[in-house]
Amino acid sequence: MELWFTEMQSKSIKMSYRVKDVLHTEKTEYQNLAVFETEEFGRMLVLDDVVQLTMKDEFIYHEMMAHVPLVTHGNPERVLVIGGGDGGTLREILKHPVKEAHLVEIDEKVIEASKKFFPTLSVAFEDPRAKVFCEDGIAYVKKFKNYYDVIIVDSTDPVGPAVGLFAKEFYKDIYEALTDGGIFVAQTESPFYYEDLLKKVYSAVSDIFPHAAVYTATIPTYPGSLWTFTMGSKLIDPLTRDISNIPDLNTKYYTPYIHRSCFNLPAFVKAIISK
Amino acid sequence: MELWFTEMQSKSIKMSYRVKDVLHTEKTEYQNLAVFETEEFGRMLVLDDVVQLTMKDEFIYHEMMAHVPLVTHGNPERVLVIGGGDGGTLREILKHPVKEAHLVEIDEKVIEASKKFFPTLSVAFEDPRAKVFCEDGIAYVKKFKNYYDVIIVDSTDPVGPAVGLFAKEFYKDIYEALTDGGIFVAQTESPFYYEDLLKKVYSAVSDIFPHAAVYTATIPTYPGSLWTFTMGSKLIDPLTRDISNIPDLNTKYYTPYIHRSCFNLPAFVKAIISK
Repeated sequence: MELWFTEMQSKSIKMSYRVKDVLHTEKTEYQNLAVFETEEFGRMLVLDDVVQLTMKDEFIYHEMMAHVPLVTHGNPERVLVIGGGDGGTLREILKHPVKEAHLVEIDEKVIEASKKFFPTLSVAFEDPRAKVFCEDGIAYVKKFKNYYDVIIVDSTDPVGPAVGLFAKEFYKDIYEALTDGGIFVAQTESPFYYEDLLKKVYSAVSDIFPHAAVYTATIPTYPGSLWTFTMGSKLIDPLTRDISNIPDLNTKYYTPYIHRSCFNLPAFVKAIISK
Repeated sequence: MELWFTEMQSKSIKMSYRVKDVLHTEKTEYQNLAVFETEEFGRMLVLDDVVQLTMKDEFIYHEMMAHVPLVTHGNPERVLVIGGGDGGTLREILKHPVKEAHLVEIDEKVIEASKKFFPTLSVAFEDPRAKVFCEDGIAYVKKFKNYYDVIIVDSTDPVGPAVGLFAKEFYKDIYEALTDGGIFVAQTESPFYYEDLLKKVYSAVSDIFPHAAVYTATIPTYPGSLWTFTMGSKLIDPLTRDISNIPDLNTKYYTPYIHRSCFNLPAFVKAIISK
């Protein structure tokens, strides 16, 4: 049987995956959710027809979302993930000796699907240091002042439920919710498809935080593949982190050298945020 | 009109580009050649149904093919490209003060198509330092001993006419054709789709050259996007290159920092070549 799932990466680019099995589909309160078993990339989570993760390459995104900010901080005790209901980023955070790892996911159906279909990610929810809040991340963050050491915005694309997670007001609330040495990071899409978004977010983060930086990773199943992450830091300059004493984090993509390299941007990406 | 070109990136992955116009198709002696005007990535060259370059992202591959080996060498006078009939790698080489830049392309129809449809690449052929030989690269290299300072293998995928360009015997001939401080580099595909090839090529290059190294770049239109390049060096250790005195090469991807970073491999890529 020729069964294919196709993501419209833009209105003129399609990426199609041969599907062995459709494991689950549902319409949640917020989005359409599907789980496929694909031939090439293994099991796949799809929200509103956009690939969120595959078993073959999820390690790249989740490692780079978690370890770059946590290692930059150096000694985070309280970490918050906004979004990321699959648990992948949380799993990586829990490799560090944090005291509390909180996750705010607006759509509890994502968490349920992960518990059922992605046990190697959702295992994170069983850690006693992990706590999940099923509510709106924007409202949640407003409740805290000087509380979290690291806040990670692990959002879907800037359409639908995630639009507010790319707004300057939200980053201001994150700044307030962070401790004095606090670090914030958000996934900010590919410069090939979302150049203006990267520029806008970097500008907003630069206005709010004393230090702003962009780093990249290559994620084959995300449109454009060259993925950006934008970091804001209240105290520590991310570019000066000594990488000689980073513990072994049992990773498949992240290494101490990657930590240093990922901030070295291709010239055209640097040009986007320098305009 | 809904006109799409689809590349089978593997038997289970398809990448499709909306096509505005089919500018050219022909069956050459060696392969099927097509030129499309695509909506998202601009003009595109396709050989045997595989994307070779697009105007939107060709700079990444060509800059990284040329500048990393030439800068590593430091003072190359004679440079050879095997393949690369579009002229993109040659264009980047000619940004350096080389004396001779030779190109051996087996299929002259690729060069003709580039001259007609890709003037910003084929402009390289007009440089008085450039010389083109339309013959088999494997036979060509055998004719030289201690001649070229840098040899770049800018091949298509390891199927059809390019198979011999990934063979150990060929790398031995390249070693002989290089001067004492000579550097060789080959594109070696993505570790997501060609893990065994990368391992095999790295092993062969390590056997032949005193120094072997792999570097990466992110190329959105190539399968897996995380692209590898394997380098062999007769004298200079590529990892120790001082990057403080690299001239401005007017690039959009390559920078001196990228030069250093690109050798810092993701853990899983390092594991492939360490096995």
